Amino acid sequence: MTMVKIVEYKAASPEVKAVYDEIMTVRKSDWVNNFWKVLASSPATLKRIWTNVKEVMSPGALDPLTKEMIYIAVSVTNNCEYCIHSHTAGARAKGMTDEMFAELLAVVGLANETNRLANGYQIPVDPQFKPEQ
Amino acid sequence: MTMVKIVEYKAASPEVKAVYDEIMTVRKSDWVNNFWKVLASSPATLKRIWTNVKEVMSPGALDPLTKEMIYIAVSVTNNCEYCIHSHTAGARAKGMTDEMFAELLAVVGLANETNRLANGYQIPVDPQFKPEQ
Amino acid sequence: MTMVKIVEYKAASPEVKAVYDEIMTVRKSDWVNNFWKVLASSPATLKRIWTNVKEVMSPGALDPLTKEMIYIAVSVTNNCEYCIHSHTAGARAKGMTDEMFAELLAVVGLANETNRLANGYQIPVDPQFKPEQ
Amino acid sequence: MTMVKIVEYKAASPEVKAVYDEIMTVRKSDWVNNFWKVLASSPATLKRIWTNVKEVMSPGALDPLTKEMIYIAVSVTNNCEYCIHSHTAGARAKGMTDEMFAELLAVVGLANETNRLANGYQIPVDPQFKPEQ
Amino acid sequence: MTMVKIVEYKAASPEVKAVYDEIMTVRKSDWVNNFWKVLASSPATLKRIWTNVKEVMSPGALDPLTKEMIYIAVSVTNNCEYCIHSHTAGARAKGMTDEMFAELLAVVGLANETNRLANGYQIPVDPQFKPEQ
Amino acid sequence: MTMVKIVEYKAASPEVKAVYDEIMTVRKSDWVNNFWKVLASSPATLKRIWTNVKEVMSPGALDPLTKEMIYIAVSVTNNCEYCIHSHTAGARAKGMTDEMFAELLAVVGLANETNRLANGYQIPVDPQFKPEQ
Repeated sequence: MTMVKIVEYKAASPEVKAVYDEIMTVRKSDWVNNFWKVLASSPATLKRIWTNVKEVMSPGALDPLTKEMIYIAVSVTNNCEYCIHSHTAGARAKGMTDEMFAELLAVVGLANETNRLANGYQIPVDPQFKPEQ
Repeated sequence: MTMVKIVEYKAASPEVKAVYDEIMTVRKSDWVNNFWKVLASSPATLKRIWTNVKEVMSPGALDPLTKEMIYIAVSVTNNCEYCIHSHTAGARAKGMTDEMFAELLAVVGLANETNRLANGYQIPVDPQFKPEQ
Repeated sequence: MTMVKIVEYKAASPEVKAVYDEIMTVRKSDWVNNFWKVLASSPATLKRIWTNVKEVMSPGALDPLTKEMIYIAVSVTNNCEYCIHSHTAGARAKGMTDEMFAELLAVVGLANETNRLANGYQIPVDPQFKPEQ
Repeated sequence: MTMVKIVEYKAASPEVKAVYDEIMTVRKSDWVNNFWKVLASSPATLKRIWTNVKEVMSPGALDPLTKEMIYIAVSVTNNCEYCIHSHTAGARAKGMTDEMFAELLAVVGLANETNRLANGYQIPVDPQFKPEQ
Repeated sequence: MTMVKIVEYKAASPEVKAVYDEIMTVRKSDWVNNFWKVLASSPATLKRIWTNVKEVMSPGALDPLTKEMIYIAVSVTNNCEYCIHSHTAGARAKGMTDEMFAELLAVVGLANETNRLANGYQIPVDPQFKPEQ
Repeated sequence: MTMVKIVEYKAASPEVKAVYDEIMTVRKSDWVNNFWKVLASSPATLKRIWTNVKEVMSPGALDPLTKEMIYIAVSVTNNCEYCIHSHTAGARAKGMTDEMFAELLAVVGLANETNRLANGYQIPVDPQFKPEQ
């Protein structure tokens, strides 16, 4: 039960179509996924979020696959079904194997566990971990 | 205000000392951080969690630095101060630069944002993202 | 797969019916939504939560629409599908437009992002933000 | 840096004092903890929350110690420092031993881990777990 | 849309079958639930998580029913649909009544509320709650 | 223990100074808060996030005070200490009274409670709440 209308390519305004076209060009894809077609109900949001995704997810000091796996780690922790599916598909397209996915989820699970042990016992940060500045 | 007593090496039982020794050997370190010294109040928990960390964080299909960054992504999302500090120190020791850290946090922030846009609009998963089985 | 039986009006005890009647009166509505019909499996919980909702959501220093939007912000952050739907319906009934909904979600998304940047970088609170007392 | 003024007993209005008195009577205590003294900045909130706590935390189908441990489980998962301390103190006063606390945190940690494995793999609920109605 | 293939008993490797057999023996059950059949896509994860569950959930200072209810409290707070269903079924099998379930959820709800009041007002921990060491 | 160096105005690059200047101009302020001075360790992040905040938080269909209160609701739910302080200061500067703050937190608390009741009981969304499209 999506909260707003999905804006299909054919029904989109020129402004929205321009973003859709850029998404498909950057991703070398011939379709636009629902995330963007729903954001398009607010063209300003569509444009703003796409600009952010384009900048943050492009190759830099971290490669695109590592970035996708970090995205999955957050989405699993927050339990965002849509994002788990879209970014797992994205990571697989960039080369994530079954073994890598299993290890990724194992780390995510363990981190969620030890986060609570650290919080539950209220463990003080060791001075050795203090960043030098 | 830690909830239980911190077990220092000198005061530790032989069982606990054995875990501390293994931690220092595996990590090529000459000290044990508070996380373990607090868990040691329950030797069964200490041993169990260390066994998990050793297995999950060792090199596999993912390299240890990638695993540390995934750990940071989860810890930041959950706001675990201890874990943010310990795993950022761990990642830096494995080669994470300032640029990598900045990109990591940028992805974590963006994922937390788009997770909520996907949830808020209740966006349906595209059939194209459905895993083949 | 609801965890307990839904208590329909006709099958309700007088105690539960009285709460249902008050809900419909206060809301000028001729039906009771599932939230209450499920809570009714524990009449004490039904009565207690309704008393809280009635007190907290009534007009005060904040108007009812603002309160509904705050409710949506929390429900989206926690990913409560039921609450997102029920409070978005409630906010729309009180006058929330598509533009307001889009801006609400934009703020919720951004806040979830910057919350993690603040946590990830462990940014110290500026003394200027300290409440005067 | 508390956001509002703490209302000490001596400076409290008769309405607030009456709640403080009832808290001390019910708890057989001669002091009121900060949670209530901060809520007292909004007497309606103070009264409402105390009424809820009194009803929910009193002995029923679950004993008070079990309720305190459930409270800790939630507070640790959410990382609420105040609540971890206050409810751990409450649980200890009701008989929670070091061993019980260690097992409680072990379950909390494990549940946080397996919650993410279930979410990350998007595991379907078995029909056998479907509640009969 | 599960992310990996479910490994049925007949198609399982001897290593995986051995874990399935142990699960059924320990639980006095004649079937294995999806959680394990999905984890089995990574036999190392299956074995590791089962070892943890077996150790953490066995009777100790806390009885198994209390542990299941703590598991539910965490799963509800995190909104893990699978875990809510599996552990509620587990708790009911161990004797949890409708009244106990209603009180459990009442505590979970209240704790999630007061956690945010404590955080929102930034309430300082009372020195009386400081653990003695 | 901030994770990176704080970039003070005097030590900032022209690129960073330009953002600081714009922040002070837009906010009619003569100082820059730590959030921006920490983000400045990554000038691209500083510029990107500021662009987002400027666009999202400016007056639109929702007024700036309502937006600040929504920001607080998210920050309290996520327990981001920095963000709670900075956005509460921001909301107070825009006219939030003690009464409004108390009602805001009351709604945030209640929403966090009922979110868990809805999740815990796995309450189905009423068809009446389904958005028309």
